[in-house]
Amino acid sequence: MNEMLNTLGKNARNAEVLVRNLSANEKNEVLLKVAEALTENADTLTAANALDVENGRKNNMPEALVDRLLLTGDRIQGMAEGLRQVAALEDPVGEVLGMKKRPNGLMIGQKRVPLGVIGIIYEARPNVTADAFALCFKTGNVVILKGGSDAIHSNEAIVKCIREVLQEQGITEDAIQLITDTSRETTAEFMKMNQYVDVLIPRGGRGLIKAVVENSTIPVIETGTGNCHTYVDETADLQMAADIIMNAKTQRVGVCNACESVLVHEKVKDEFLPVLARRLQEKRVEIRADEAACELIPGAVQATEEDWGREYLDYILSLKVVSSVEEAISHINQYNTGHSEAIITNNYEHAQKFLDQVDAAAVYVNASTRFTDGFEFGFGAEIGISTQKLHARGPMGLLALTTTKYIIYGNGQIRP
Amino acid sequence: MNEMLNTLGKNARNAEVLVRNLSANEKNEVLLKVAEALTENADTLTAANALDVENGRKNNMPEALVDRLLLTGDRIQGMAEGLRQVAALEDPVGEVLGMKKRPNGLMIGQKRVPLGVIGIIYEARPNVTADAFALCFKTGNVVILKGGSDAIHSNEAIVKCIREVLQEQGITEDAIQLITDTSRETTAEFMKMNQYVDVLIPRGGRGLIKAVVENSTIPVIETGTGNCHTYVDETADLQMAADIIMNAKTQRVGVCNACESVLVHEKVKDEFLPVLARRLQEKRVEIRADEAACELIPGAVQATEEDWGREYLDYILSLKVVSSVEEAISHINQYNTGHSEAIITNNYEHAQKFLDQVDAAAVYVNASTRFTDGFEFGFGAEIGISTQKLHARGPMGLLALTTTKYIIYGNGQIRP
Repeated sequence: MNEMLNTLGKNARNAEVLVRNLSANEKNEVLLKVAEALTENADTLTAANALDVENGRKNNMPEALVDRLLLTGDRIQGMAEGLRQVAALEDPVGEVLGMKKRPNGLMIGQKRVPLGVIGIIYEARPNVTADAFALCFKTGNVVILKGGSDAIHSNEAIVKCIREVLQEQGITEDAIQLITDTSRETTAEFMKMNQYVDVLIPRGGRGLIKAVVENSTIPVIETGTGNCHTYVDETADLQMAADIIMNAKTQRVGVCNACESVLVHEKVKDEFLPVLARRLQEKRVEIRADEAACELIPGAVQATEEDWGREYLDYILSLKVVSSVEEAISHINQYNTGHSEAIITNNYEHAQKFLDQVDAAAVYVNASTRFTDGFEFGFGAEIGISTQKLHARGPMGLLALTTTKYIIYGNGQIRP
Repeated sequence: MNEMLNTLGKNARNAEVLVRNLSANEKNEVLLKVAEALTENADTLTAANALDVENGRKNNMPEALVDRLLLTGDRIQGMAEGLRQVAALEDPVGEVLGMKKRPNGLMIGQKRVPLGVIGIIYEARPNVTADAFALCFKTGNVVILKGGSDAIHSNEAIVKCIREVLQEQGITEDAIQLITDTSRETTAEFMKMNQYVDVLIPRGGRGLIKAVVENSTIPVIETGTGNCHTYVDETADLQMAADIIMNAKTQRVGVCNACESVLVHEKVKDEFLPVLARRLQEKRVEIRADEAACELIPGAVQATEEDWGREYLDYILSLKVVSSVEEAISHINQYNTGHSEAIITNNYEHAQKFLDQVDAAAVYVNASTRFTDGFEFGFGAEIGISTQKLHARGPMGLLALTTTKYIIYGNGQIRP
């Protein structure tokens, strides 16, 4: 292994032992001091960021990406505020779950403990640097960050700031480490450091996540893309259905919990589709529909097979007429990405069937899929939304960054 | 992808939808009928097994492996009894955990659901075939089995028997499928079928598990090797310490929760080691000790650095003298495999420190590590013992074969 990565891994394991056993008070104090330090060093951070932005522009980075890269005074305040919010959350580490006494007198319980060393691979978004540190550190984990090369100066400045606070507080500065060599080879090696890293979390677009899932030998928590559906049942309150679809599609289009596809029961298509289409078209949403729907929607484009599987992240919606709740469920289970799905209905049996049979991280009756979010679910934080089934599914808060170990109190028991 | 695997994957996904929604009663009836069918077809099964055993002997399979491969009438009764036990367990699927009302009126809860399609890769142990089916089916999962080529006839006969029952009961027979092409290439492809398989569980020795972890792109639950330690503190009840070590080392040597290494506090070494050594040597346990311990144990072999990391699975024990509980903890955290670790002590602070700071799936005070087992922990079943930190850690019962999805009841909520 690359000497640099080897050293980094050893440092992380050494730090792990120290960070794992910090009290909530000690961890919160660090988070509050880091919030202060980021604000105090705002000029240094924006200066470092200016280099990244300048390089980005030089390399013709699209303006949307430049905007995500940019650090301003306000955004640095936002990062600091995020750290304070995490400090205010309850520390889940140390709780003992379900301790029971076995017939032989052994007391067996599950204690919530940190995962250990968490690797985070992300793109050119410097705010993720502080955010990922806050969530990992709050849960007693050590973090190794591998950010996008386009944000390298910004990330170095933020990490330096955090490490200085850690040192001042007498806590190992290796609680956070940044991989500054952003070459493909180093990233590939990083994803195979099972010896030093317990979990890898990719945060970013589809391509990044796919690359990590395919190449990592370290267990991955896959945060995911969302081809989210809303199904309008024959018994739906059509006003409610239109309001929910408008919200789920247009309130924010570039997010994973936005609605990408609408299914409508054939019995309500004549009444519903023209109304819905008018409202969507007012917001300049392009509609890609099947034949039955096209007939009712002037200006709709004929959908292709490929459209049913697309996550547009744009002002585009696919739309299909179905003849039953069963057909809706089966279409969704075929094309969805396991993220968020909704039914709009007043039929009890259809609601229960949809909740039971749709295979996704979050399944809604009569609400917008946009609620799939750690803050909206009441976790007070979010490290991402898992679309995999192992370990965590759906919005992940602090709990997703912990594991458990069994603790067993005995008085001399041996196995017969 | 290999055409056979592709078909198999599609069949599994089609079956998934049906199996996921079976009631506990329907599933239990299948398990009881399979138990009956295995007993009724005992002659067919032993005849198929005889071919495997004959081939094994022809290929000079070691007798210990032949014994694991062998099916007898009694062993078939044992398999059937295992199925009946699983039928008697409570079905965890469908439980809704922690439903809460959010300020906006949304009701959000977590529903326990099957994982989906589970792949199991194992060695030439035909009993795993029925056992893995029982646990997966009970939790509403579809299973694809890839057993060792040495047991192919046995596995085919068992799977045929199960599929016949499934068909008779009007349930898709693809709830269980066996990969009969046991070539390396097919196995390698199977481990990359993310599209069709949700989780892969290797069951077998270190080499098999390592190969799956390194080559699978499907999320893996790593079941593991155990380099388990017992630390005898200066305040230990030495009689209890010796009894526990004898149990953990010699009650069954070839298992992952057996004790492989003993650490003894220097203050009790003179009194304890000669007594312990005598008892171990009576049971013909070879002792590989550090210098301090060797001085007190006639016949002990000098341990090498390599010994501290070994899982012997044999009548061999490594032994080291330490000067504090901290040194014991640090030695264990350096060399253990994250399985099971025990301290024998009467000191409150040392017990708490050991429980807090030792990083393993199960940490004991004053008990034998041999209790790390799904049955001993009261789960009524065991699919393996996880030594990874994601999803499940320690003995895995039925719960480890489930995941959750969020179900959300609304009445028209949209996101502001």
